[in-house]
Amino acid sequence: MGTFPVSSSRIFSSRFNQIPNSVHSFIHPVKPYNFTSNSQHHRPGQFSLTTSNPVCLCLKSRLSCRSTTTKAVLSEISYQNLTYSKIGASSTGPIPSAQLLESVEIAAKTGAEVVMEAVNKPRNISYKGLTDLVTDTDKMSEAAILNVVRKNFPDHLILGEEGGVIGDSSSDYLWCIDPLDGTTNFAHGYPSFAVSVGVLFKGKPAAAAVVEFVGGAMCWNTRTFSAVSGGGAFCNGQKIHVSQTDKVERSLLVTGFGYEHDDPWAANMNLFKEFTDISRGVRRLGAAAVDMCHVALGIVEAYWEFRLKPWDMAAGVLIVEEAGGTVSCMDGGKFTVFDRSLLVSNGVLHAKLLEKIGAATEELKGKGIDFSLWYKPDDYNTEL
Amino acid sequence: MGTFPVSSSRIFSSRFNQIPNSVHSFIHPVKPYNFTSNSQHHRPGQFSLTTSNPVCLCLKSRLSCRSTTTKAVLSEISYQNLTYSKIGASSTGPIPSAQLLESVEIAAKTGAEVVMEAVNKPRNISYKGLTDLVTDTDKMSEAAILNVVRKNFPDHLILGEEGGVIGDSSSDYLWCIDPLDGTTNFAHGYPSFAVSVGVLFKGKPAAAAVVEFVGGAMCWNTRTFSAVSGGGAFCNGQKIHVSQTDKVERSLLVTGFGYEHDDPWAANMNLFKEFTDISRGVRRLGAAAVDMCHVALGIVEAYWEFRLKPWDMAAGVLIVEEAGGTVSCMDGGKFTVFDRSLLVSNGVLHAKLLEKIGAATEELKGKGIDFSLWYKPDDYNTEL
Repeated sequence: MGTFPVSSSRIFSSRFNQIPNSVHSFIHPVKPYNFTSNSQHHRPGQFSLTTSNPVCLCLKSRLSCRSTTTKAVLSEISYQNLTYSKIGASSTGPIPSAQLLESVEIAAKTGAEVVMEAVNKPRNISYKGLTDLVTDTDKMSEAAILNVVRKNFPDHLILGEEGGVIGDSSSDYLWCIDPLDGTTNFAHGYPSFAVSVGVLFKGKPAAAAVVEFVGGAMCWNTRTFSAVSGGGAFCNGQKIHVSQTDKVERSLLVTGFGYEHDDPWAANMNLFKEFTDISRGVRRLGAAAVDMCHVALGIVEAYWEFRLKPWDMAAGVLIVEEAGGTVSCMDGGKFTVFDRSLLVSNGVLHAKLLEKIGAATEELKGKGIDFSLWYKPDDYNTEL
Repeated sequence: MGTFPVSSSRIFSSRFNQIPNSVHSFIHPVKPYNFTSNSQHHRPGQFSLTTSNPVCLCLKSRLSCRSTTTKAVLSEISYQNLTYSKIGASSTGPIPSAQLLESVEIAAKTGAEVVMEAVNKPRNISYKGLTDLVTDTDKMSEAAILNVVRKNFPDHLILGEEGGVIGDSSSDYLWCIDPLDGTTNFAHGYPSFAVSVGVLFKGKPAAAAVVEFVGGAMCWNTRTFSAVSGGGAFCNGQKIHVSQTDKVERSLLVTGFGYEHDDPWAANMNLFKEFTDISRGVRRLGAAAVDMCHVALGIVEAYWEFRLKPWDMAAGVLIVEEAGGTVSCMDGGKFTVFDRSLLVSNGVLHAKLLEKIGAATEELKGKGIDFSLWYKPDDYNTEL
């Protein structure tokens, strides 16, 4: 089992080893770096491409080189000019896509059966900290999902919210399992919550299934979202697509607030207020996977949150991307499921939203908040 | 048709004509006023009962007598010692309660049929201001409900969100109709939204029905909440009850933000942040009647919002009260459906929530924000 989180420096260096060291001389003009490939897409927080003399804004530099010029530099970031890397795997590897999709759907639905059994029953609730609920159902759902995965793919690596990492770290496949996303909602009987299962191939989402619990007492029901890389996104078997809304003032948005009430939490409170002010509203529903599926379904335009974990995101991000949406970190940079922040949108609005969301994230970086990768299982081979 | 809003002074004087004028001498000790009846329950914002020398904090006094001592005075308000007047009517009048309940359910379900017809169809959306949507469905639903009410009770007074006041103002019955509560959600296909119909007898809620739309694309469904004064609250015919949760840190809460982004809006942003910090979470779902029904169902502990209208509240407040919950204004004072703010809770938590919500409301009063009644149809006879 890996130790999480791993140190930021290791991941940073392995991920951006193509970047010349010279650019880390903060605010000193450096030789323009030519990004020729989407897959090597920069983060706005690391480089500004809007000037002829790109400026390094990376976390490492910030920590050692804080400067009163930060605000001026941030204002130069143009999110309109960014393109966003695809986050989905280029293929499902040696397992045919139809087989992987079927397997991930069966896994999620098996967990959902456990949850549905429990949905109207009294629950024994334990605590993590003050407000983090973990229920017996959570654990039983994960066990049921693990059984399905291990039976079908005994050599695959598995990362579960409850059980940590198990399996063979030399596998190209990593299953990310949230057996009950939206535990607080579940504990209160408040819709929605979900079972979320995403499987990565060489570090990138290849197949995904999210079973959303909708309705509530007297009328519980589910709908299943699924996607396979390159194959589109579906809800109950019907193809779905993100919305076409191109104006923030006509958008309905959704965000989340984690259990840790730190600087990013406070920053997102400001974003909640700002976007409530200028959009049709910001919803706060309480289940990350569900919120992402709602973007994919086109009923909200975007969702963002700091401090998510791989099991929260692995399935939802692929479903959004396959529904035509865009996925990035909250600074606009390239996203992986091992990251610490997430913005998903209908694509059209991504840059406009980043004008506030990206700026807020850059401010947090300026304060030294860690936005390195949160966790990646030791020795897991990726193509990130 | 009445003019809304009516002036605050008229309503204030008619409502509190038992209060001696002497108490309006702000921060000067006055003769203690003896409240002997719950039905004449004071507002904390008008009197503090926690000192032997009650102090008038009413809006009228504030406007003319602002003082640097406001903060000290506010701290004397003890919400723990308050009792809360019943908001439901003492009877359903000459119409038997079963008949009135059946009629209000039929009215709401008739509107809901119109909404269900439209729920998966493309919609022609018009605007009120920038973010206030009103759909054809809204208007068609109201027309359908009006037909039911006028057919059954041609002499009753009706207040609809779309159509204003119609009918005979000498009637003791006033129907408050929200043909589509949560219009933004409906426009986006985001659950939940509702049809809400409440009927008042002499100004107080006597019967109520809310049809909630749950689920979403691929799985739309409804559940119907109903209540009659003194007869309990029901969801799909099953008796419901508020939660028993007695700690804020174990509560799930919900609030709303109106279209007007004024001081109360900003104050509620602060409350959203404060309660997100100390509770299990604050949900923002976007439909007042639905949020109240969720309190009645026991899946959230409380809901509050500034700037609601009678049609938003008339049904939901009765359903909460009949489910065992407590209803007051956001300052803890006696509530009527003609008021401008609302706090509904499971009762147990009401005083604890008011420590923040009441204080925030008092601050707004201190700034001169109008918390007089919003609107009551001219000549409508009440026992408020």
